Amino acid sequence: MDTKDLERKFHMIGGDGEKSYARNSSLQKKASDMAKHITLETLQQLYKETRPKSLGIADLGCSSGPNTLSTIKEIIKAVEVAHNNEISNQPLPELSFFLNDLPGNDFNTIFKSLPDFHTELKRDINDGDFPSVFIAAYPGSFYGRIFPEKTIHFIYSSYSLHWLSKVPPALYDKEGKSINKGCVSICSSSPEAVSNAYYSQFKEDFSSFLRCRSKELVAAGRMVLITLGREGPAHVDRGNSFFWELLSRSIMDLVAQGETEEEKLDSYDMHFYAPSAAEVEGEVNKEGSFELESLEMLEVDDDKENVDDTSYGNAVAKTVRAVQESMLVQHFGEKILDKLFDTYARMVDEELAEEDIRPITFVVVLRRKL
Amino acid sequence: MDTKDLERKFHMIGGDGEKSYARNSSLQKKASDMAKHITLETLQQLYKETRPKSLGIADLGCSSGPNTLSTIKEIIKAVEVAHNNEISNQPLPELSFFLNDLPGNDFNTIFKSLPDFHTELKRDINDGDFPSVFIAAYPGSFYGRIFPEKTIHFIYSSYSLHWLSKVPPALYDKEGKSINKGCVSICSSSPEAVSNAYYSQFKEDFSSFLRCRSKELVAAGRMVLITLGREGPAHVDRGNSFFWELLSRSIMDLVAQGETEEEKLDSYDMHFYAPSAAEVEGEVNKEGSFELESLEMLEVDDDKENVDDTSYGNAVAKTVRAVQESMLVQHFGEKILDKLFDTYARMVDEELAEEDIRPITFVVVLRRKL
Repeated sequence: MDTKDLERKFHMIGGDGEKSYARNSSLQKKASDMAKHITLETLQQLYKETRPKSLGIADLGCSSGPNTLSTIKEIIKAVEVAHNNEISNQPLPELSFFLNDLPGNDFNTIFKSLPDFHTELKRDINDGDFPSVFIAAYPGSFYGRIFPEKTIHFIYSSYSLHWLSKVPPALYDKEGKSINKGCVSICSSSPEAVSNAYYSQFKEDFSSFLRCRSKELVAAGRMVLITLGREGPAHVDRGNSFFWELLSRSIMDLVAQGETEEEKLDSYDMHFYAPSAAEVEGEVNKEGSFELESLEMLEVDDDKENVDDTSYGNAVAKTVRAVQESMLVQHFGEKILDKLFDTYARMVDEELAEEDIRPITFVVVLRRKL
Repeated sequence: MDTKDLERKFHMIGGDGEKSYARNSSLQKKASDMAKHITLETLQQLYKETRPKSLGIADLGCSSGPNTLSTIKEIIKAVEVAHNNEISNQPLPELSFFLNDLPGNDFNTIFKSLPDFHTELKRDINDGDFPSVFIAAYPGSFYGRIFPEKTIHFIYSSYSLHWLSKVPPALYDKEGKSINKGCVSICSSSPEAVSNAYYSQFKEDFSSFLRCRSKELVAAGRMVLITLGREGPAHVDRGNSFFWELLSRSIMDLVAQGETEEEKLDSYDMHFYAPSAAEVEGEVNKEGSFELESLEMLEVDDDKENVDDTSYGNAVAKTVRAVQESMLVQHFGEKILDKLFDTYARMVDEELAEEDIRPITFVVVLRRKL
């Protein structure tokens, strides 16, 4: 599947039904909350330094759910605080929010909630002046240009950058067959060429990302990138990669039961890569437009007892399903999904009973050099 | 129904199915084609005068259909021509297109066609440099602010401004009953208070529209407004109002057959007003930020023989249905719609056999004063 195909086909489940991303993104929300103070402090620092009359803020990979708009509200409040601390005698800046995701994302659902959101904003933010708030959608891949030059002050991206622009072409041999058999991502059984292929694709994509953003951001503009990552150089560990290893095993289980074909599993590869901190830092330095202000490593799921679900495995299964269903359906068909994710939930719980799984999240703060 | 309700509920039929606006807007397309040369010439004139490095262009009431993107392509070509005539030695400007419509509009369908549209653009426009083109959606009512201050160079709006922000409140008596019985708009049977109520609402809305746009446009920025209008001061004529008179009569027909209740017809009122040229000019002068560069009156449907449909009545019925269905369904229920529009198509054909119907379109060109 090439980039154009991905742009059309990859999206979180839309709407607000039982299986939608909107209702199954609580794990993402939890981590975003932990990263929130970094995001808001960075924004306030930027505002203090630049004091623009009109502030452009972009959410890259905004998806479609409650997280999309709740972050906007917090940002408005943070800007108000920074403004009142700095230049309270001047009018509040205009705030433009640019929501970005692939063209297949369900923007309609976000838009339909805007009239209520604006009403709510006016009710909640009533200390004196109310700022002008403009909310727009800029669909497209963030591995290409999205915005005109020097129009953005602040960019945040939550759980999106671990999605590559495409499945690495180097995963396929001359006959077009995947060299990563029995696995959907980097598994313990994968040959080294697989992790090399993924790492190369990450380098190509992340440097495009940085180059495009460097054109779009104003001088001293900031980016806060929240993304899944790895704890160290090893590609296979009990972190994020392990969730995909379990997904591969769940599909293998269905193959064994005759529910799907082995060839289907062999030919399915995800466009996912969790970089290490050193890999992120390496690309930032190589591209050269940004200064790395900070890189924090968070372990999100330390509170496994307090999940709103029958089990932690079920919560993970729902999240993974909301995120991967659009791709899985096209490859395996709709029929196997319920069974697949029941198996998956069970496997996650079984593994957890034996040993912890530690998914890592990075919060990377970058500053556009002057 | 108040403004907030309208923002949620009023929209063209989305998607690209048989009854969608996308496939039933050929009458609008025809008139837009006639207005096209005015639009493109005005844009070129603006470009010549201001020569911005980054050009912001907004489509207010963009709807969701082939017209939305085909206009963008023509605009890009026109800017290239103007650029090459004026400053061909300099790089092409960046072009930002801001698509606006109410939040209930089907933006997803537009977005899904963007990857193909960009590919097509690059294929069709290949004389030398290809400009950077950014396409974004800014949902919201254009009777309020949509864009940050002084960010827009050119605004066009095609067949949207005849939709008022709400049904005029003065149409309802103290008990909340409509004073416009048996009619959905201004009919020959309507008391004078009805046309007064609509005219007042138009004045309020159009002056808000001008005030908001005057903030958003740069100095010398232009607007090309394509809207339905009236030929003279009389509110009832064989023009646009007559199509609504026939819709009222079609509903009455269904009332007579027991398909719906008279009370439902009495309480249904549209948020539509076709102003006269003098009324448009009056508001422009009163608001004061714009100079009226030109106001042309077009009669769109002079070519009634050449309609792609079984009859002209059917073509009109499909167009009116794509535009009004979202509102009619909520009031009358889905059940009556097929019969209603069969009746309507027949009535249009019968009336045409007797005497011409002459719907008027205005193309208004406004220039933001310096």
